Order: sequence, then C-alpha cells, then structure tokens
Amino acid sequence: MKHRVISLLTDFGEDDFFVPSLKGVILKINPLARILDITHRIPSFDIMAGGFILYSCFKYFPTKTIFLVIVDPGVGSSRKILLVETKKYFFIAPDNGILSHILEEENITQIREVTKKKYFLPEVSHTFEGRDKMAPAAAWLSKGIPCVEFGPEVTSYESHDVHKPQAKGNEITGQVLYTDKFGNLITNIPERMLDLSGERRIKKKFSLYAGGREISSFRKSYSSAKKGELLFLVGSLGLIEIASRASNASNQLKIKNGDIVRIVIKSEK
Amino acid sequence: MKHRVISLLTDFGEDDFFVPSLKGVILKINPLARILDITHRIPSFDIMAGGFILYSCFKYFPTKTIFLVIVDPGVGSSRKILLVETKKYFFIAPDNGILSHILEEENITQIREVTKKKYFLPEVSHTFEGRDKMAPAAAWLSKGIPCVEFGPEVTSYESHDVHKPQAKGNEITGQVLYTDKFGNLITNIPERMLDLSGERRIKKKFSLYAGGREISSFRKSYSSAKKGELLFLVGSLGLIEIASRASNASNQLKIKNGDIVRIVIKSEK
Amino acid sequence: MKHRVISLLTDFGEDDFFVPSLKGVILKINPLARILDITHRIPSFDIMAGGFILYSCFKYFPTKTIFLVIVDPGVGSSRKILLVETKKYFFIAPDNGILSHILEEENITQIREVTKKKYFLPEVSHTFEGRDKMAPAAAWLSKGIPCVEFGPEVTSYESHDVHKPQAKGNEITGQVLYTDKFGNLITNIPERMLDLSGERRIKKKFSLYAGGREISSFRKSYSSAKKGELLFLVGSLGLIEIASRASNASNQLKIKNGDIVRIVIKSEK
Repeated sequence: MKHRVISLLTDFGEDDFFVPSLKGVILKINPLARILDITHRIPSFDIMAGGFILYSCFKYFPTKTIFLVIVDPGVGSSRKILLVETKKYFFIAPDNGILSHILEEENITQIREVTKKKYFLPEVSHTFEGRDKMAPAAAWLSKGIPCVEFGPEVTSYESHDVHKPQAKGNEITGQVLYTDKFGNLITNIPERMLDLSGERRIKKKFSLYAGGREISSFRKSYSSAKKGELLFLVGSLGLIEIASRASNASNQLKIKNGDIVRIVIKSEK
Repeated sequence: MKHRVISLLTDFGEDDFFVPSLKGVILKINPLARILDITHRIPSFDIMAGGFILYSCFKYFPTKTIFLVIVDPGVGSSRKILLVETKKYFFIAPDNGILSHILEEENITQIREVTKKKYFLPEVSHTFEGRDKMAPAAAWLSKGIPCVEFGPEVTSYESHDVHKPQAKGNEITGQVLYTDKFGNLITNIPERMLDLSGERRIKKKFSLYAGGREISSFRKSYSSAKKGELLFLVGSLGLIEIASRASNASNQLKIKNGDIVRIVIKSEK
Repeated sequence: MKHRVISLLTDFGEDDFFVPSLKGVILKINPLARILDITHRIPSFDIMAGGFILYSCFKYFPTKTIFLVIVDPGVGSSRKILLVETKKYFFIAPDNGILSHILEEENITQIREVTKKKYFLPEVSHTFEGRDKMAPAAAWLSKGIPCVEFGPEVTSYESHDVHKPQAKGNEITGQVLYTDKFGNLITNIPERMLDLSGERRIKKKFSLYAGGREISSFRKSYSSAKKGELLFLVGSLGLIEIASRASNASNQLKIKNGDIVRIVIKSEK
C-alpha cells in the first residue's frame, strides 16, 4: 500500500521550482511513494490538452495509481479540488473539466472535495495550491488514508462536452484531437466506426479529407507507406490517425487540433 | 539511511549524456538512492538562476536530502568542490557562489572541501567533474559516509551579494529575481516589507511601478483579477510577484530579471 | 534481481503520452523496477544520435541494467526487435543499427529476437510497439525471465559503419560526432591517436583545423582558456572536443555533426 505510484501531469514546465516542490512535498510525507511524471509540458492553462494526455495513457498504469493532475487557471478561486475514486484508480485535480473523459467513461466509486486542512501543508499560499494542498493530499492518500477523510461528497462538477464524431450515410465527420511530437494527427474517430471487423475490411475502400486534400492511402502501419507519403491508419489509441511515413503530416497538411476531418467510404461490394 | 534522497540541479539540459551519466554513477554506488530532479534547464553557466531555483524549493524536501548542484563554468580549474552540511540538509556544489542564499540564511553545521580520491571515480576527466567527482561523492554520502571523511574543513568560500530591497519613506525599491514559465515576475520584496499583518492590511493601498507602468491592482490570487489584467500579489514564496490573469505579465510589461520594481504606499489612515 | 534498473532512451519527446505509457506498462508488470531516463530528446528517427548518446553513458550504469532503446522509424514493419545480452548489460532495441557501437565493441553473450507473445501486452498496435512489445519485454526481463525465453537466436543484424578517424603522416582526419548543449563539438578522434602518453605529451604541438579556422590552443580543461577563446581538449569521453571557454564553439565555428576535422602535429623534437 505504501509503495503506491503517484503520477504527475501538469502545465508547470520543467524550468521552474514548481515540479520539484510537488515531489519534495510528496516524499516528505511518504518517503516510499513512487513518483512518475506523465508530462509537465501541457501548454499553459490548456485543460483540453491535459485531459487528452491523461486519458491516452492512464489505463497503462498499475491499479491504485494516484493521478495528480494540475492544469489550474482558477488557482486561488473558489473552484473545488476534486478527489475521484474509480474502480481502479484515484485522481486529484481542480474541478475545471480536466477529468471530463474520466468522469464520462470510467466506473466512478466516489467523488470528494478535498477540504480537510489536516492533509494540507501548515501554510497555504493563494497561488500554488498544487504544492500546498493537492500534493500533500496525494501523499496522504498514498499512505492509506481513505478517500472519505478528505472532505464532503461531491455530486455536481465541471464537465466539458467531449466532441463526438458523426456518421451520416457513407461519411464520418470528426476532428483532430491532438498532434503528437512526430506530427501525427490523432482524430476522435474510433476504429469501430469504420466497421473493419471480419471479412468486410478487405471489401471497403476509404478516403480521408483534411486540409483540402484527399488521402486515399489507408494502411496498417507507418512503415507500409513510401517516405513522405500521407496516409491514415488505426493509431495506438484505437483512433484514426493521419501520418506521413518518416515525415510530419501536420506540417504537410497545415491543419491543427480542432480542425475537421471527413472519412468517406468509397465503395463496398 | 541508505534510502536517502539525492536531488539534482544542473545546467546540463536533457538532450545529452550528462544527466544520465550522473544518475548511473549514483545508482552504481548506492542502488537504493532515491534520485529526484529539481531541474536541468538552468541557462548554461547561470549561477544566479541556479541559486534561485535551489533556494525556492529546497525547504520542501525531506530532511537529510542531498542536493547535488552543478552549474560550473569553472570546471577543471582550481575552484573547490564544497560539501555543506546544514541542520537539515546536505549540499554538494562548486565553490562559485551558487550556494550564496543557503550559506547566508541556513544554519551551517560544517563546510568541507571534497578532495578524497577514494570517493571519486577511478578515472577523473578535466571536463566532467560532475560525473567523476561530485556524483560519486553524493552517492557515498548517501550511503552514510560522514562529511568529515570527504576532505578538509573550509572557512572561506565564494558568496554573491544577495541583492536586498530598500525601504525609504513610503517607497520600497526591489528588483525582479526570476520570471517563471507563466510569465509571472517574482521580485525580491518579501511580504513582510508591506507590513500586511492584522487589520492594517485593509487600510493600505499600494501601487507597483515597473516597465514604465503603474499597477494598482494588489490581489490575493491570480483568479481574483480579470483576464489579461496586470496585478501584483504575495506569491507562493512569500515574495511580491507581478502577474497577469491567465496571461503573461513578462510579455505585457517587457521587463526582465534584474529590472527595478518600486512599490509605493499610496494612502494609510 | 527484481530491483533491476530499466533505462529508457527514445525519440518520443516529453510532451506526449508515449513515455508515460512505457513507464506505466513497466511498473504494472514489475512494481519494483527502477526506471531511469537517459533522454527522450533524440531528434525524431535519428538512429545515429540515439546510438551515440547510448554509447556515451551506458558504462556508468549498474551491472545488469536493462537499456530500452526506442528510435524506430520502421515500427510496424518486419524489422526485428532485438534483445542483446553483453557481459554486463541487456539491450532491447529495434534491429536498425542503433546498437552498432555496442555490438562492435562489447562482449556479446547472446542476441535474441523478441517474438514470444506471452511477454507482450494482450493487444498489440501496429504503431506503438514500444509500449505493446518492448516495454513489457523489458519488464519481464527485469523480473528474471531468462533471455532464451523471449525468442530465437539471431545471427545477422543491422549494423552501421562506425566512421573511424584516419592517421596519415603528421595528420589525423576525423569528424564531428555530436554537438552537446554547451556547443562543444565532440569528434571521433580518441585521445590515444595523439599519443599523449608519458613524457611525449609535453614535446608535441598540435593544431586543429575546422570550419576554415586553425585552432592552436590545446588545453587540459575549458577553464584554462580565456573567455570566448576557441580551444580543443580531451573531453570526458576520451575523445577530442572543440570548445570555447564559457561560450559556444558550435556557434562560433558554424560547423555541425559529420563535418570534417583535422589535427596536425606541428612539431616534435
């Protein structure tokens, strides 16, 4: 129990004293905590990007991992600090919608507001609640303090609409959710909307339209295309992704997060 | 004892073989050491910035933490390697003033020069003493070797003047110490110089002058201002900070570290 | 055995979900694994840079360290995943030449192709084999599964020519292997080619030619030169390095990785 993993996701960057302060606070309270960074490079205040990155990797972490998620433009305001327990994990985050994906799709056991001063640092600043409230709460939770101890139950919370792709006739309309480091454009269109199961896969032909271009190369992996060729495929998150073999699709297409993407089913016997 | 935390602060960046070499060396000597990064993104050779980041977070670390601090423009010269023991912590750093804040304000138990070859790597290069001398010394210290073993006592050392803010009449003059990732400008003016204690807080009005602008919005937190509004507040280090709600004060004001900041007490009943 | 170090080197960057996914997968399989980052900032698909960074620091890691090396432009193709056991270490990497230095110079015990599905995640994507195949294999290896279990022996593999410096008369011709964060240019010319041993050192004079300039200052360390002075020296890897005291040699000389460097032995009694 005491060796539990605490996983950090913030927009603090790696230049400043913010992240090491969180880690120091955690280890001071629980010297046995395993601290793992998800990333600290979420663009400042970008709740959507933070929520996406969390959602794209949390399932790979060990059961009982505590996710400490701090992208917090409302620090010092009356926005709540949430502690969410799901069947497998714990999440501590500001109540600003960053947990929308988790709250919509996971099995929620309980949601608490973190209010108990006993689990905060003795002095609490108005500008760094991550260090003074959230990190200590995560550390105490990792020592086995039950969720119920941290504050009252919460029944309403911020939640952002998670944009859903639409199917109409032979056409699926979605959008770019995220552009990764390699320039791959990850859309919100899940593999299952293309209905690729069984034999039907080989009978279908698809074209993807984005940035004024038609991409007709639907592949299994990056490496099955020619160098610099635009293609689309089922990415590692089970979502349709636009890529360019050993090159950068985002630069080639000049489209960005939020831009519309259409897939047309061209022929089917 | 053997599980002690070793905390790293360098200007090595994260692209090169420098930082992993330090970590490998430490774990080879003490496989149980807990290695924590403060940051490796101090601007090259910037002793002042390194000293500030160290000072702004070291107090949050567990007792007995060993801070390995390597911003070292004089590597290979005759500058000493210091081992400083304070009441709570240990610091290993080049003798170039980077520990000025620590040496001025902390309770020093002893200062040693690290000279004993027994605690270095068998081969010592002239250009990477961090890997060959300082990291092994930190690892041996974490295994319980007493400070006295590492070399002779040191009585004089480099120390930079820590610029102190001045109060004169109704005016306090300080300077920007550090600009954080969000563009918040952290000054060297401590909260107590504004004498905000007790009831007097509500009776005072302040204006801050910086970059040719008057900022009259003195707030409790970022979130109590309008978006893009310049304000100043007591930051998380207990120092006066200039900020801009959900925006970037540094870009708006076009001022930088070292620039002068004045606070004027406008009225007091 | 179970506490073994797993050391990560990738071109994944630190912004995305790639690196935390690897770490989550590893800890889920072996909660006692010690995960250490070498770097994740290898330029995308740059096998040569990845190989160099690995080679420049692996020797400093504890015996039995498992190096998980993922710079993998051929992900999803038929390129093999290699598991290399040397006398002291383990390496898991795509078969694309990134281990060339290791395979050429280390004592190889065995090389396996990682094929056993039992040691992969239950679902394997075509675009993120690092997460789905390589990280789980590294984690199982760290739990003590013997190499022979992971797949068949491999006898041929990709290997890049490691460019070797040439000596001819009084002249040594090499090239820049790597430019570090400080702008120091690390060449492939080893110290021993200058034959500096014993007394002869003091009798020799060298000039280095690079970027159309002659550099005649051959020093012991950076600090023995004047500020901004170009010099060359034996760097921390035992290789000749061009540097500029408290400045940036790469910017001053405008040369880059792969560019030719000549050293001429000017006089010898």
